[in-house]
Amino acid sequence: MLDKLFDPDVIAVIGASRTEGKVGHAVLKNLLQGAGHKVIPINPNVTEILGLKCYADVLDVPEKIDLAVIVVPAAAVPSAMEKCGQAHISYVVVISAGFKEASLEGARLEREITAIAGKYGIRMVGPNCLGIIDTSSSLNASFAASMAFPGNIAMMSQSGAICTVTLDWADRTGVGFSKFISLGNKADLAENDFLELFRKDDSTAVIAAYLEGVKDGPRFMDVARNVTREKPVIIVKSGRTAVGSRAVSSHTGTLAGSDAAYTAAFRQSGVIRADSLEEMLDYSRAFSTYPLPRGKKVAILTNAGGLGILTADACHSIGLSITSFEEETITKLRQKLPEAAGLYNPVDVLGDAGPQLYEHALEVLLADPNVDGIIVLVSPQAMTDVPAIAKSLIKIIKTSDKPILCNLAGGTRIAAGEELLNKHSIPNYPSSERAVASLKALCDYSSIKVKEHTAPVTIPVNREAAQKIIDDAIASGRRTLGLESMGLLKAYGIPVVRSRMAGNLPEAIAVCEEIGYPVVMKIISPDISHKTDVGGIKLNLRNAEDVERAYLTMMSDVKHYMPNAHITGVQVQQMVTGGKEVIIGMDRDPQFGPLLMFGLGGVYVEFLKDVSFAVAPINDKEAQHMIASIKTYPLIAGVRGETPSDIKAMIDTLLKVSQLVMDFPFLTEFEINPLMVMPEGKGCLAMDVRMTLRKE
Amino acid sequence: MLDKLFDPDVIAVIGASRTEGKVGHAVLKNLLQGAGHKVIPINPNVTEILGLKCYADVLDVPEKIDLAVIVVPAAAVPSAMEKCGQAHISYVVVISAGFKEASLEGARLEREITAIAGKYGIRMVGPNCLGIIDTSSSLNASFAASMAFPGNIAMMSQSGAICTVTLDWADRTGVGFSKFISLGNKADLAENDFLELFRKDDSTAVIAAYLEGVKDGPRFMDVARNVTREKPVIIVKSGRTAVGSRAVSSHTGTLAGSDAAYTAAFRQSGVIRADSLEEMLDYSRAFSTYPLPRGKKVAILTNAGGLGILTADACHSIGLSITSFEEETITKLRQKLPEAAGLYNPVDVLGDAGPQLYEHALEVLLADPNVDGIIVLVSPQAMTDVPAIAKSLIKIIKTSDKPILCNLAGGTRIAAGEELLNKHSIPNYPSSERAVASLKALCDYSSIKVKEHTAPVTIPVNREAAQKIIDDAIASGRRTLGLESMGLLKAYGIPVVRSRMAGNLPEAIAVCEEIGYPVVMKIISPDISHKTDVGGIKLNLRNAEDVERAYLTMMSDVKHYMPNAHITGVQVQQMVTGGKEVIIGMDRDPQFGPLLMFGLGGVYVEFLKDVSFAVAPINDKEAQHMIASIKTYPLIAGVRGETPSDIKAMIDTLLKVSQLVMDFPFLTEFEINPLMVMPEGKGCLAMDVRMTLRKE
Repeated sequence: MLDKLFDPDVIAVIGASRTEGKVGHAVLKNLLQGAGHKVIPINPNVTEILGLKCYADVLDVPEKIDLAVIVVPAAAVPSAMEKCGQAHISYVVVISAGFKEASLEGARLEREITAIAGKYGIRMVGPNCLGIIDTSSSLNASFAASMAFPGNIAMMSQSGAICTVTLDWADRTGVGFSKFISLGNKADLAENDFLELFRKDDSTAVIAAYLEGVKDGPRFMDVARNVTREKPVIIVKSGRTAVGSRAVSSHTGTLAGSDAAYTAAFRQSGVIRADSLEEMLDYSRAFSTYPLPRGKKVAILTNAGGLGILTADACHSIGLSITSFEEETITKLRQKLPEAAGLYNPVDVLGDAGPQLYEHALEVLLADPNVDGIIVLVSPQAMTDVPAIAKSLIKIIKTSDKPILCNLAGGTRIAAGEELLNKHSIPNYPSSERAVASLKALCDYSSIKVKEHTAPVTIPVNREAAQKIIDDAIASGRRTLGLESMGLLKAYGIPVVRSRMAGNLPEAIAVCEEIGYPVVMKIISPDISHKTDVGGIKLNLRNAEDVERAYLTMMSDVKHYMPNAHITGVQVQQMVTGGKEVIIGMDRDPQFGPLLMFGLGGVYVEFLKDVSFAVAPINDKEAQHMIASIKTYPLIAGVRGETPSDIKAMIDTLLKVSQLVMDFPFLTEFEINPLMVMPEGKGCLAMDVRMTLRKE
Repeated sequence: MLDKLFDPDVIAVIGASRTEGKVGHAVLKNLLQGAGHKVIPINPNVTEILGLKCYADVLDVPEKIDLAVIVVPAAAVPSAMEKCGQAHISYVVVISAGFKEASLEGARLEREITAIAGKYGIRMVGPNCLGIIDTSSSLNASFAASMAFPGNIAMMSQSGAICTVTLDWADRTGVGFSKFISLGNKADLAENDFLELFRKDDSTAVIAAYLEGVKDGPRFMDVARNVTREKPVIIVKSGRTAVGSRAVSSHTGTLAGSDAAYTAAFRQSGVIRADSLEEMLDYSRAFSTYPLPRGKKVAILTNAGGLGILTADACHSIGLSITSFEEETITKLRQKLPEAAGLYNPVDVLGDAGPQLYEHALEVLLADPNVDGIIVLVSPQAMTDVPAIAKSLIKIIKTSDKPILCNLAGGTRIAAGEELLNKHSIPNYPSSERAVASLKALCDYSSIKVKEHTAPVTIPVNREAAQKIIDDAIASGRRTLGLESMGLLKAYGIPVVRSRMAGNLPEAIAVCEEIGYPVVMKIISPDISHKTDVGGIKLNLRNAEDVERAYLTMMSDVKHYMPNAHITGVQVQQMVTGGKEVIIGMDRDPQFGPLLMFGLGGVYVEFLKDVSFAVAPINDKEAQHMIASIKTYPLIAGVRGETPSDIKAMIDTLLKVSQLVMDFPFLTEFEINPLMVMPEGKGCLAMDVRMTLRKE
């Protein structure tokens, strides 16, 4: 798939130019610096460029063209694309800008060229991109200032400038890439296509990306789930804090924002999310260089006590463990290290240590089964021969089956050592904190790689009954459903509280007698979402007299606070005590679809914003993870010998909600609030529900 | 103060050596590269070093020596020091290692030389240090590999290697220092002395430090509070995660650890805490270069959309605001920027922008009163003339009264521009996130500088009554006091719950009748800290019958759970309802003394660890800050129209506890748990208290 895109025999440059400084010239020159492919300039106004025969049109070219690179102005791209189709060209890279990113007219042009590509079955990169690079096939179909060095990192970026920045950074540090793709506007080929390609690409070991969004969320998750099982994927996704434009009325919607879905989707599909370009490149270099650690037990080797402590701080705060050594390790270290050396973790070989001491200590540490990875710190002290130590490090790193991450700390006097490391494709992390964070990324991926992705189980439900409730709501023009739609939960096997509706006071009293005291009474109105605020909930009513008083006060309070609210009656429920309130919600994300939310109810969700998210459908492990990852989990798991809450029942409910929201895409918002969870073995009960149906 | 230490006329090097590579040689050479001072080598075995007459002994030197630098082996330092005293030398830098850091014998030697220094009134730097540097007096009394460049940053470090790393980094980046001090073991002169010196030093504008601890916590806070009003102080303090060695039995102690005290002390005294050396240097360079911003409103100027979004993300997540421009700003930007440019924040001058466009945009943005600071991003695209843009940036930065932080992003093609910035002492932040974090540090200091430090008020209390309670406890050998010591609170005007003790059941019933039902009954035992766990608390007892049943069950339960606990009786209290439980505690930190803790009671403190700290004594603003800075503050301040808790009463209690723990250093641990806080205007009530007295 896409093979000839990256290893074409014949390439046409449509819009090739003789003028230096023009993109049409730069692309041609870059292509000519490659090998193994023929390059043909296309330009109706000249006969020859850079010694190559120039054709007026791709249709004039006698050879079969595999790839066309288009650099003509946007308005001329549709006809160029049409000709590519007629010439049976399979791949096109549209570098030209002036499309969706620029104007409405540009957006129209983009739809036009996409349609032409579709008509002829052309696969297109761009438009509005820097081009593509493949170091293994020696292809540079871009106007980048320099060719990438060969390497095992595949990189794609939705921003051309970030391609430029990364290539320029790599040029200085000597970092190599297998493939380098500027995604542009992603009118046709997008991140999903390239993720699949990278997975199969033998020259690629690590996948890095800068994305501003994904084109197809659910497919992205499917593809990424498969890719991350084989190769690490590190993505920096920008626009974290963009304010969503949709109006939201539920807790879930308010708390989710657009970024929570990305975070959840990345986590669920094993993608490592980097917070900055720096992190993305740091992590990529680590994966590019090192074997994966078996665990999180770290040894620190230093020639400076202070740096050792700072590094231990960094390990601790990021969740790596400062390991304890075996007796034998200490003994062996003592044999060669000076008396004042630190033999425990961090191991301090002292300021005058030479390469032999570093080597000895490293070999001893590597042999210790309690060491999964090592951070090596070198400060350029009076006696320190940094290049010699760098050489020792290179020798050991090249053969080690455990990762050894380096921080040669300083400037002028570590430059030569740093260059040596770079030459051997070994990163020198400019700070120990960055080395530690990169080691953590290696550890995280060790767990991701072995994570099982079990398919969500399908639970037997009464889908027809649920469908009928939704159909009835739509037929009667209702978009916001509340308590009256508890039947939907029942149809999906979610236990609900005993509850009846009443339209007036005598009905309310009759219904209470039927349910049995004590009861709770709640107002029902499509206009009221926070019932408590308007006096719309009365608890612990013990007899008919209580009910009467509560009913009258409630009606008068609600009228006072919301005089225009349309009141359809009251809901009477059995009073449930002894449980904990949790919330299970769903908000439909524009990229990823149904985003589930879980949190401990009441003030925890509202003021501590202590919630977790996952994209549906989920399996039981995901459900378990959602529950266990909130900060207040100890309150659910049981504190101080208190009986734990019924976690199984919560998992079960999450799975049923997951299935429900998958089954009914019409549900745009959904929230069980609260779900009353009883102690272990006693189940849970949905106390209230609120959902919104999509407007057609 | 310390003037001649940094600007001596005559300097002796005790232990000067002819041998290259020896510290005694390196120090001499470094000193000779300075100007304005005479350098005299001291070594009994040679007559001349580096062309200088060498003396056997400082006592032989005819001139008055201002500063002696000692590099002889540790064992020879006492006699060298003794001679310095006899020669009336006022300042000594002891570079020699082998003292406290090395062995018990070394520690003894260190006490000995400190005593000698004290006897003669010598002020000493070190031992076990790299030495000191002063660029304004051209003094390099160190064995550093190179002299620091002149600059306005004063740096001190408790680690010699970190001095080395920093100087080497500065050598590569061209960053300059006013003074550079390796603190060593801080046997005499320490951070407090140098902080005061730096404050008065005209050549110093910024103070940076690496510390592993402070020598005198309370004095540090006093000094730092004064210094930070005039100059920014940025400290990286290592050992964040070191496990305290003291046994602790209270919540406060467990939650505090050793780092909480540093964090609190730094915050209270206006010190900016950096999390890494990288951060410390980033922030120092920002302070060294830029004026302080008036507010947190940031403009972003970029030639690459993607970088702009990432930077906006970084601003948002760190708490800086992406400003909105005035109408006029947009109009002026539109005049010169290309049509497709981004005119709103981030301002995108597009990939082909030259220096003129950057200059125009910067000038327009600087004129906008809604802009407090600017982040400028430059990516090296095809047409980008990075050095020319750098020159424009330098011109504008040099005259701007608002900070403009730069991120030239890339490697090879930004190197020349970066070098230009460095030459003009303008930092190029390697990532926009680091530029943003540094701008945030500037903003933070703007607030620190204007913060008023009011003295704690003294509240009238009955100190004698409190003293008596403590004396009685000591006399009777009790170290852990509980409910029975509520009188201590009363003596300090802290309202306490109505409460009596009873030794047996009949007494308990009598006492309950006296207090009035409903009551709460609690076990009293020096061996039981968590009463609930052993059934040692019974709530809501409404009559004598309830009391009898509760008493008998409690005794049987306690016997069951803790058969060996010594039980002294029960405590009967009025039953208080309608309040919120908070905890006020104190743990005595070895560095800073009494560390106060505040948190919302129960599960919040135990499982969310949602607490705040401050070093006593505090004033009302500090107390207010403690209360407002816990995450669950909304629950106290009142949510959804609920009446807020009585915050004034909590502040008042915190102030009284602050005074109490200052008055009685014998109290090593103290905790009111819970303090029941009633709604606004209704006060608060201490429900239980627990304190530990120091063992003599």
